[in-house]
Amino acid sequence: MNLRDIGEFGLIDRLRGKLNPADETVVVGIGDDAAVAAYHPASHVLITTDMLVEGVHFREDTIDYRSLGWKSLAASLSDIAAMGGIPRHAVVSLAIPPAFAVAKLDLLYEGIGQICEAYHTHVIGGDIVKTEGPLVISVTLTGEVEQGRALLRSGAQAGDLVFVTGPIGGSAAGLSFLQSHQQSLVHPDEQSVLLNSHQRPQPQVEAGRILSQSGGCTSCNDISDGLASELNEIAIASGVGIVVEEERLPIAPAVRNFARLAERNSTDWALYGGEDYQLTGTLSPLAYGSLVNQFLMRGLELHLIGRVTEGQGVILRCRDGEEQRLQARGYNHFAE
Amino acid sequence: MNLRDIGEFGLIDRLRGKLNPADETVVVGIGDDAAVAAYHPASHVLITTDMLVEGVHFREDTIDYRSLGWKSLAASLSDIAAMGGIPRHAVVSLAIPPAFAVAKLDLLYEGIGQICEAYHTHVIGGDIVKTEGPLVISVTLTGEVEQGRALLRSGAQAGDLVFVTGPIGGSAAGLSFLQSHQQSLVHPDEQSVLLNSHQRPQPQVEAGRILSQSGGCTSCNDISDGLASELNEIAIASGVGIVVEEERLPIAPAVRNFARLAERNSTDWALYGGEDYQLTGTLSPLAYGSLVNQFLMRGLELHLIGRVTEGQGVILRCRDGEEQRLQARGYNHFAE
Repeated sequence: MNLRDIGEFGLIDRLRGKLNPADETVVVGIGDDAAVAAYHPASHVLITTDMLVEGVHFREDTIDYRSLGWKSLAASLSDIAAMGGIPRHAVVSLAIPPAFAVAKLDLLYEGIGQICEAYHTHVIGGDIVKTEGPLVISVTLTGEVEQGRALLRSGAQAGDLVFVTGPIGGSAAGLSFLQSHQQSLVHPDEQSVLLNSHQRPQPQVEAGRILSQSGGCTSCNDISDGLASELNEIAIASGVGIVVEEERLPIAPAVRNFARLAERNSTDWALYGGEDYQLTGTLSPLAYGSLVNQFLMRGLELHLIGRVTEGQGVILRCRDGEEQRLQARGYNHFAE
Repeated sequence: MNLRDIGEFGLIDRLRGKLNPADETVVVGIGDDAAVAAYHPASHVLITTDMLVEGVHFREDTIDYRSLGWKSLAASLSDIAAMGGIPRHAVVSLAIPPAFAVAKLDLLYEGIGQICEAYHTHVIGGDIVKTEGPLVISVTLTGEVEQGRALLRSGAQAGDLVFVTGPIGGSAAGLSFLQSHQQSLVHPDEQSVLLNSHQRPQPQVEAGRILSQSGGCTSCNDISDGLASELNEIAIASGVGIVVEEERLPIAPAVRNFARLAERNSTDWALYGGEDYQLTGTLSPLAYGSLVNQFLMRGLELHLIGRVTEGQGVILRCRDGEEQRLQARGYNHFAE
């Protein structure tokens, strides 16, 4: 079946059928000029948006369309998590080449439906248009957070501890694995870790909620552009320096093993790879004890990887005792 | 200057400088993982989104980039107007070809800044990415409306009056004018009417607010796809029929005159052209007298063009007394 057979409105009906049913926060969903949503009266509303372009952000040879649907919303869910918010309502727009297969769009929306179900989020609108260029996916997601509780980048203070909520470097390792010719040399369990890290990242919404409710988290970012870039943003916004210890970086054994096999550097993946969608940020030292217990009780991870200093910039203290300044070299569109 | 010279982050800094300053509803604007916005505790939040693709929605030979910026947000502002809401916060994402001139993006954001200023709206976030395809603009706009006051498509009842808030057909006439070879034959004043109708439409936010506050507006749509399509949506959603009188359609003299010159049909432009961004909908007959006074006092127009009947479908009663059924033949992506 192709798009000409079902047309714009047939496609919209078809795709909305893949989505999870609305809850009571959706007053008016897909189908009017605008959607109507209910938020708690004491909340501030969070808004974040991400655009993904085929050939730039994803390629058919390294991700299937169901995973792409998952990952398209994961990026925005992770932004809401990084603000300490509860994700609520998404609008999804697509620019589609006319010859694009409807079956691929079905899979895309199955993946969107799956992640919305997993994170109690709802797609309540969108726009579907034609393009002569590559597929473009635009996601805007709202969330809510108690007034004054949003986690910003700007509150880190000298003496604070630097945390990360889980393993990093896995997404870059997974992409490298998908593009390699050594796949058969990797144990199936480790293959799963690498694939899932790249294709099905898990935004840390629950961790963000614990951090925002604690009052002890002084800054927070999600790791979309790599740890080095995210920590530099915090250091600049907060006017502080940060020292990170290489030996404390949480890198999964599957990632270390594949790095060895592929003769790549797993620390580089962790620092510069991005798309891990863990949270990183800073904690008041007094808050750590209580926070780590809350994380443990819910089966979540909270790794300390460094500390905040006077001064500026982000320093990596390597295993051999050497120190190096970490530049914010995440992906820069138009730079290459 | 090109994009490689300033990079993604230089471009973001440059473009945010074109925007109007934030107001007190913007708690955290551009620059963190998500923006934070404050809404009135008794409000519902409205969300609408539109995607525009070069070559499909706009072309450089019929619109300048400043007007394109204006028009990109006008579509979304009109959706909020059609819900009876107050527009609040926008996020704007762009997929940009690498060779695209920065000067064009400057103009685009000047236009965005102008319409945000005019409608007391703020851009509080976005995403800027690279594409090998045409320029893509994605706008998501929020608004707020008092709980229970949103104007939907579904409340029209037999006996209601059908209204439109201003002249229609002007956008299609303006596009035809821009593509014609008869421009020098049109009086300069009428040229302005045609150009502004197409390039600088005025979303009817104030009219939408009066209608939602009155309690007498039983359904509402904005005219983005042409009157025929919008009234069909209302008829279907409300389970009613609608009869419209051709002689009552508010078509500007400039539009009628250019139709005559170009040997085109101005009624067709009004019914099927779209992008007029006036509101159309239905009123309880008892509400009309008070409403028309409020509109007049604020210098706004409120034209009655027909009535709601039992049955289904939309009928046009022509000047010659003939009746014809109006199909919803607005623009359908993928149909051509």
